[in-house]
Amino acid sequence: MKEIIAVVRMNKTGATKQALVESGVAGFTAIKVEGRGKLVTNPTLISDRKKELLMMAGDDETGEAEKLITDFLVGTSLFPRRLFTILAHDEDVTKIVQAIILANKTCNNVGDGKIFVLPVSDVVRVRTGETGESAV
Amino acid sequence: MKEIIAVVRMNKTGATKQALVESGVAGFTAIKVEGRGKLVTNPTLISDRKKELLMMAGDDETGEAEKLITDFLVGTSLFPRRLFTILAHDEDVTKIVQAIILANKTCNNVGDGKIFVLPVSDVVRVRTGETGESAV
Amino acid sequence: MKEIIAVVRMNKTGATKQALVESGVAGFTAIKVEGRGKLVTNPTLISDRKKELLMMAGDDETGEAEKLITDFLVGTSLFPRRLFTILAHDEDVTKIVQAIILANKTCNNVGDGKIFVLPVSDVVRVRTGETGESAV
Repeated sequence: MKEIIAVVRMNKTGATKQALVESGVAGFTAIKVEGRGKLVTNPTLISDRKKELLMMAGDDETGEAEKLITDFLVGTSLFPRRLFTILAHDEDVTKIVQAIILANKTCNNVGDGKIFVLPVSDVVRVRTGETGESAV
Repeated sequence: MKEIIAVVRMNKTGATKQALVESGVAGFTAIKVEGRGKLVTNPTLISDRKKELLMMAGDDETGEAEKLITDFLVGTSLFPRRLFTILAHDEDVTKIVQAIILANKTCNNVGDGKIFVLPVSDVVRVRTGETGESAV
Repeated sequence: MKEIIAVVRMNKTGATKQALVESGVAGFTAIKVEGRGKLVTNPTLISDRKKELLMMAGDDETGEAEKLITDFLVGTSLFPRRLFTILAHDEDVTKIVQAIILANKTCNNVGDGKIFVLPVSDVVRVRTGETGESAV
């Protein structure tokens, strides 16, 4: 048994829920969190990504967009994210992870999200008292 | 050492807190989440449960209650739930799980909640720097 | 690969974020939770700590401060806390845990927080599909 944790963009909440239900998952929770991924440390990558984001931001007379973008790329700011926790049988993990990727992958943009898989020692269904695989 | 995660009904928050404190747990957190359990797929079970819930809902001239109930049983809607995380010694897990069940079990109603037990590699108490079992 | 979970004081959120970024962590999330640590059961410790907290509270004509302090020490009340989840390579866990301790340790005050380390079976970066250590 595994717990799958997925941290994804806020605007992918609906698509991820849909993907999970269609995968037939055994139950899941969703929480609003703040988060950030690995800091970008390659100067060329930072510079390229900054240009790209500034272009997307359009006019920036006040410099506000540039400040936000720099913070996003190399600062300590956290951004709103949606964290899903999903309980799964071992043999269903790959299928569920693929469904989450499909719902969240963009065109190579930083920030698509991350998925962790944690081992689970036991599961209990409160209603029936069932434990182990049959409680998943 | 284990982390016990319990996802329960919102209106069982107080009873669960009380049960945890009376079990002498070593500390716990509570978070509001949205969640849903395993989708019901047996048509007879769906039909029976639907009738039961509609009866509980009373008059439903607008069809609003039926829509909500159908969504609850077979849709993708998430519902407010309370998620507890509890740190425990291995030998206390059974006692704590039983206390959570006792506080949350209803008369065989779907949605009583689920409990997961995860292995923990290490624990650190910030104040003293203690690690391992003595930090639990 | 490990997931580090740290539950700390709300007013240590900024210091903890700063410590994590300076440790070069691979990404993290922050959530507001409610929590409490191990209940104090040693009567002398309770009495000593109560006196100390009452002195810090100052005038308490209404008895409100004493009620809050008693609840904090031996009651079931939960208090706002910040929970961080951090993904880490095995060899970086000690460094990151030390950074969190440094940012959160006070002068032996109860409530500095707790850190758990959980094993992680797999990690997936959604953007690239990378898995395992290289996805951390």
